[in-house]
Amino acid sequence: MLRVDLNCDMGESFGRYAIGSDEDMMKYITSANIACGFHAGDPSVMRHTVRMAVRQGVAVGAHPGLPDLAGFGRRRMEVSAGEVYDMVTYQLGALLAFVKQEGGTLKHVKAHGALYNMAASDKGLAEAIARAVYDTDASLILYGLAGSEMIAAGKARGLRTASEVFADRTYQADGTLTPRSAPGALITDPDRAVNQVLQMVKEGRVTTADGRTAPIEAETVCIHGDGEHAPSFASMLRAALEKAGVAVSPL
Amino acid sequence: MLRVDLNCDMGESFGRYAIGSDEDMMKYITSANIACGFHAGDPSVMRHTVRMAVRQGVAVGAHPGLPDLAGFGRRRMEVSAGEVYDMVTYQLGALLAFVKQEGGTLKHVKAHGALYNMAASDKGLAEAIARAVYDTDASLILYGLAGSEMIAAGKARGLRTASEVFADRTYQADGTLTPRSAPGALITDPDRAVNQVLQMVKEGRVTTADGRTAPIEAETVCIHGDGEHAPSFASMLRAALEKAGVAVSPL
Amino acid sequence: MLRVDLNCDMGESFGRYAIGSDEDMMKYITSANIACGFHAGDPSVMRHTVRMAVRQGVAVGAHPGLPDLAGFGRRRMEVSAGEVYDMVTYQLGALLAFVKQEGGTLKHVKAHGALYNMAASDKGLAEAIARAVYDTDASLILYGLAGSEMIAAGKARGLRTASEVFADRTYQADGTLTPRSAPGALITDPDRAVNQVLQMVKEGRVTTADGRTAPIEAETVCIHGDGEHAPSFASMLRAALEKAGVAVSPL
Amino acid sequence: MLRVDLNCDMGESFGRYAIGSDEDMMKYITSANIACGFHAGDPSVMRHTVRMAVRQGVAVGAHPGLPDLAGFGRRRMEVSAGEVYDMVTYQLGALLAFVKQEGGTLKHVKAHGALYNMAASDKGLAEAIARAVYDTDASLILYGLAGSEMIAAGKARGLRTASEVFADRTYQADGTLTPRSAPGALITDPDRAVNQVLQMVKEGRVTTADGRTAPIEAETVCIHGDGEHAPSFASMLRAALEKAGVAVSPL
Repeated sequence: MLRVDLNCDMGESFGRYAIGSDEDMMKYITSANIACGFHAGDPSVMRHTVRMAVRQGVAVGAHPGLPDLAGFGRRRMEVSAGEVYDMVTYQLGALLAFVKQEGGTLKHVKAHGALYNMAASDKGLAEAIARAVYDTDASLILYGLAGSEMIAAGKARGLRTASEVFADRTYQADGTLTPRSAPGALITDPDRAVNQVLQMVKEGRVTTADGRTAPIEAETVCIHGDGEHAPSFASMLRAALEKAGVAVSPL
Repeated sequence: MLRVDLNCDMGESFGRYAIGSDEDMMKYITSANIACGFHAGDPSVMRHTVRMAVRQGVAVGAHPGLPDLAGFGRRRMEVSAGEVYDMVTYQLGALLAFVKQEGGTLKHVKAHGALYNMAASDKGLAEAIARAVYDTDASLILYGLAGSEMIAAGKARGLRTASEVFADRTYQADGTLTPRSAPGALITDPDRAVNQVLQMVKEGRVTTADGRTAPIEAETVCIHGDGEHAPSFASMLRAALEKAGVAVSPL
Repeated sequence: MLRVDLNCDMGESFGRYAIGSDEDMMKYITSANIACGFHAGDPSVMRHTVRMAVRQGVAVGAHPGLPDLAGFGRRRMEVSAGEVYDMVTYQLGALLAFVKQEGGTLKHVKAHGALYNMAASDKGLAEAIARAVYDTDASLILYGLAGSEMIAAGKARGLRTASEVFADRTYQADGTLTPRSAPGALITDPDRAVNQVLQMVKEGRVTTADGRTAPIEAETVCIHGDGEHAPSFASMLRAALEKAGVAVSPL
Repeated sequence: MLRVDLNCDMGESFGRYAIGSDEDMMKYITSANIACGFHAGDPSVMRHTVRMAVRQGVAVGAHPGLPDLAGFGRRRMEVSAGEVYDMVTYQLGALLAFVKQEGGTLKHVKAHGALYNMAASDKGLAEAIARAVYDTDASLILYGLAGSEMIAAGKARGLRTASEVFADRTYQADGTLTPRSAPGALITDPDRAVNQVLQMVKEGRVTTADGRTAPIEAETVCIHGDGEHAPSFASMLRAALEKAGVAVSPL
């Protein structure tokens, strides 16, 4: 039976600032990537989000990012592999403490934003992340862009990995994402987004922006939790997957 | 045989900013309280300091503080018990990850600066810290000002506690520290500081600023790691304790 | 003719985090207090907000706060008068640069949150703020809680001051605000809030929480810009004031 | 008569963290570039440093950087021209407030670290900085790497510029600095550093790392204020310049 995980970034509020529909999204996803206080999140938001996920049976993951709250972790920074090893370790440890206190188990790690993108193509940074994850808990699953250096580094280090695809992003002929700055990078039509996911999960390939098809491994699908229609899209995607006979469950 | 622990705040550098003579101090102390990135310290400083302590056989402790780098965690802030529970949990978790990666064991927790002082007299905050420590690892030792609410809260929660005294601060008739702002709060003569420690450890009492004596429990002595003469004072104090037949060892 | 200013805190978004209905509120208020990057706001938000205010003819004010983004500047911190003098100067200067570039004029200063509250009763902090304002530009108007140390310090320094009242807060017999933590502190019924403002502006007194009346000076009314109904309340309050023959204009 | 300015980065302490020998360096330099709180410095450090410079007759400049205290502003970040325009404006305004209060005049602006380096070769960022400076005060002098996009952007915008050379860095055949990561990038011998400055100032050229000579414009020389020997080197360089008949004065 086909099987896929639905993951969503969570716990990205900060102090009085609220982002995302975490509570609603929890109903539809199977894995929550919880921000760890660097690009977003704070200790109280982290506890609250971990607690929600544990209560609703959603798999808990860490979502470490660059130390850049002002840029929401989306601005590339010139960080060394050593710095990344240390900053990911720090964030994993912080989240682990809440997970333990709330009676849950940390299942996976997914880097955020610019760190995710940098590690997709920079082998040294990918290895630093994989090492931080492995040295913290070798049973953690490392999420990364399908076909990326991150996935390769995780496998090389001996970690279980999860190849991630996106519902609302188009792909290029080489299987990489169309850059956000390029025209046609985003899929705004929900039906088209659902169909792309179904194609990726069921056929292991994706129709690229230029009309060709590229092979792609879709173990987990990233859906976004912000935006007015995020919960309704999540609900619709999950229903479509289940109707198509795909089991929606954590890895 | 009499026994006492010598502890020192460590890992308080940040980025390019260096503070303290950590490497030198490690030779004389038995317990290191390592900053966790809120009032001081950063992920790379934390790893480096944990590694040094583990290599030199110094007991590793967490030193969580208020989120106030600009004030070095020394400014009181209006934080709720819930916020403190969460911010201490976060910092303990972060440090634990480095301790585990570096092959050590976390032994104790000591709050920093304003958080330490607030929790010395505020029962709610003291309980929040004790709870965060207990819920993270019930075998951790909670350090606190001798006679404080922190020690009481730790005992009430079921934690092992360590009553802390200061070498370079004078005491008032009620056994509390003379406030830093008051005249005669600091002991600047090293011989006098050593003698005060010997008196506290060997006799269980302290001569107060007004010439009386007050009973005091001295399980661990805080010595400062900054200041030009910090390592030489640490060396001198340790030698004096050992000469007086006091075993200097972690708890 | 009676006259009153309607002010609102603005520019409190940060990076990707949005707060407030600034654009809508600008239609109804006469003075905007713009956050300066310490408790909220960032350089780009500041420019954007200044530009909006200048374009809409709303008087531009600075809204300096404590350096505590995580607490939105609402947590009291132990800051010295010297630190406050410096941090207010810094924030005024930063905002002034945008005001000048956008072709506007800085008109007033209102401290934010805990800094506002601390300076309402702490003479030293009130003087530090008044001095920072005066030394930056002696023609600025200093806003403060009606009857507070802030107003007294501003007058003593030679600044023009504006006594502020609140639409949605109740008052105690001594003319001070009922603390937020006390029952009945907030006025949630819009009609009652409007009536309180009309009473304060037209009669110079307020019915206190315990049913008595206290004299109060209402030169400017603070209305809040967050909350779903903020713009509709602002519109309603302005219409009621104008209907009652009160000119709504900046000071 | 030949003339050169000696500038130094100043005010880079933060809270309890001290860096640099500002007081000593002030005796030898003619222009101080004062950090503005983003990569280093805080409001109280800024005031203190401005006051020192004003008292000693050293020309005051702003030294804006990237918002990265942890990396001391030395890590490149993916910032847009719009963000740079805003963040430089913010920092200039903040420093200006202190300069005005302390009775001085802001004379120049020099970007810090990664921002300086990025703007040396990125025309869009260079223009954003030039625009922020010009729109704040068109009479400010813009410092930049000799031959860089920063200097070109300043001239294009109508600003007076100052071409900067380094005493302790070697140059490549194309007149650019040898990257710090390359062997031979740093000049550690004080005599050689002094001779390089004399050559640049008197002859308008520099002997490059590969033994050739390249033309270079040396209107201002950057000397570093940290390091144990910084003040003695500054003293030695100034004496050598004066002995060689070069007037050492601000622009």
